[in-house]
Amino acid sequence: MTHDLDQRMHFAIDLARRAGELGLKYFRDLENLTIESKGHQDLVSDGDREVELFIRAAIAAAYPQDGIVGEEHAAVEGSTGHVWVIDPIDGTANFVRGIPAWCVVIACAKDGEAVVGVIHEPSTGETFHGRRSGGAFVNGRPIKASTAGLGEGSVGTGLSNRAETKHVTVLIGLIMAEGGVFFRNASGALMLAYAASGRLLGYVEEHMNAWDCLAGMLLVEEAGGMVLKPDPKTVLAQGTQVIAGGKHVFPKLQALCAQAFGAAPTGIAQR
Amino acid sequence: MTHDLDQRMHFAIDLARRAGELGLKYFRDLENLTIESKGHQDLVSDGDREVELFIRAAIAAAYPQDGIVGEEHAAVEGSTGHVWVIDPIDGTANFVRGIPAWCVVIACAKDGEAVVGVIHEPSTGETFHGRRSGGAFVNGRPIKASTAGLGEGSVGTGLSNRAETKHVTVLIGLIMAEGGVFFRNASGALMLAYAASGRLLGYVEEHMNAWDCLAGMLLVEEAGGMVLKPDPKTVLAQGTQVIAGGKHVFPKLQALCAQAFGAAPTGIAQR
Repeated sequence: MTHDLDQRMHFAIDLARRAGELGLKYFRDLENLTIESKGHQDLVSDGDREVELFIRAAIAAAYPQDGIVGEEHAAVEGSTGHVWVIDPIDGTANFVRGIPAWCVVIACAKDGEAVVGVIHEPSTGETFHGRRSGGAFVNGRPIKASTAGLGEGSVGTGLSNRAETKHVTVLIGLIMAEGGVFFRNASGALMLAYAASGRLLGYVEEHMNAWDCLAGMLLVEEAGGMVLKPDPKTVLAQGTQVIAGGKHVFPKLQALCAQAFGAAPTGIAQR
Repeated sequence: MTHDLDQRMHFAIDLARRAGELGLKYFRDLENLTIESKGHQDLVSDGDREVELFIRAAIAAAYPQDGIVGEEHAAVEGSTGHVWVIDPIDGTANFVRGIPAWCVVIACAKDGEAVVGVIHEPSTGETFHGRRSGGAFVNGRPIKASTAGLGEGSVGTGLSNRAETKHVTVLIGLIMAEGGVFFRNASGALMLAYAASGRLLGYVEEHMNAWDCLAGMLLVEEAGGMVLKPDPKTVLAQGTQVIAGGKHVFPKLQALCAQAFGAAPTGIAQR
């Protein structure tokens, strides 16, 4: 099983880097990029679609019995219990406008739980990777989640059309009232990778889709941090609330999110 | 005069890139970086100090009669009316924690007004530059500020110990209530460069020091955008409120800042 997971992990690392190269070709030729709106402040480009097709084709060739869930194309049913969960370009709003903070995200889930996670940022050449019980790394070096408190760093956050924008304002106010600082570079997966590597204290968002958060949450756990565990039965189809960060700051982040987001979290437990 | 300005501009571009190389040496060896606190959530490293000394030495050799104002060391009086305004590493909180979004900022002011501005991001190799009445560029290609409205992009913002954190929360709430999105990658100068290149709609902050904002505001103006003009008599010593962005969004940003920040802006006019 571990050998199989390691194979999948190395496959995912290599694939994310190749997909990143393809994404960079579109990024360096933005003038010719075709951009469409999927909703208010929600964009997609032919770059997103083509990179996702590239990733899907590689998975279908290597693991033809696995399922695939991605942001831009229909889900593929599998028969192995393994489902690849992919976001070809996380941070599309950055990508289409020329801001270099975007990344390729490839997770592999078994029975709804992430077992492999890779986040690759082509603009800087950083690849974050990890597998369940195998640790977390950036470009091969081990990473650790922060052990600092809220007043000693920054907390990443994001927003989407699926959550109340007012909740984000309340959350930011609460973070700052506690001496914290907020950070939003508009790529949720990249900010989760930063939380896993202790660059951010943590990352919180009221709702994220599975392809944006599963890889990064696995990295945070494998880096010694804590996450609000999503429901494995629903997360692939419905997404989840995300609270992830270092062990010291995690309970505080949970308390602030409960205040800001109001209702009980959609995740089922923490660990 | 234009020839002299062009010389200063090319000097500043070359210097920012060399300073960026030096900064990268510290950034790639973070484990051995010495970090001190200057105040709550306000850090400085030996990387900041050494890069500033490197920049100061180069300026003193090339323009010995000019003044120098920088973030980490005492001001140098000059006799030419030209003052170099430098931030060796803008985004120190990112720098010391391993987040690649930081930059070297070199502006040259004449009688308190920026005439040359350079912002160099070593992690991506992008150099933004411009001189008064000479246009704005990234890696030699012309850039243009956005012509879009608030609902069609993101507005950068920042925070510091010099302004009420509550004002930032109010501002973010107002931006989102108008269909806008906020962005904060924790490098104000880099976000101003993104505003100049139309990647962000604009950038607003209640108070910035001159070394953080003069270069970027010049770039926004030279890219066809608008800025709240700082008072040339006070900006080098006291900093200014910053409102900068595309022509279409600028009046809206001014109105939102007036609401969020309360008092009259410290700048004197717009253009």
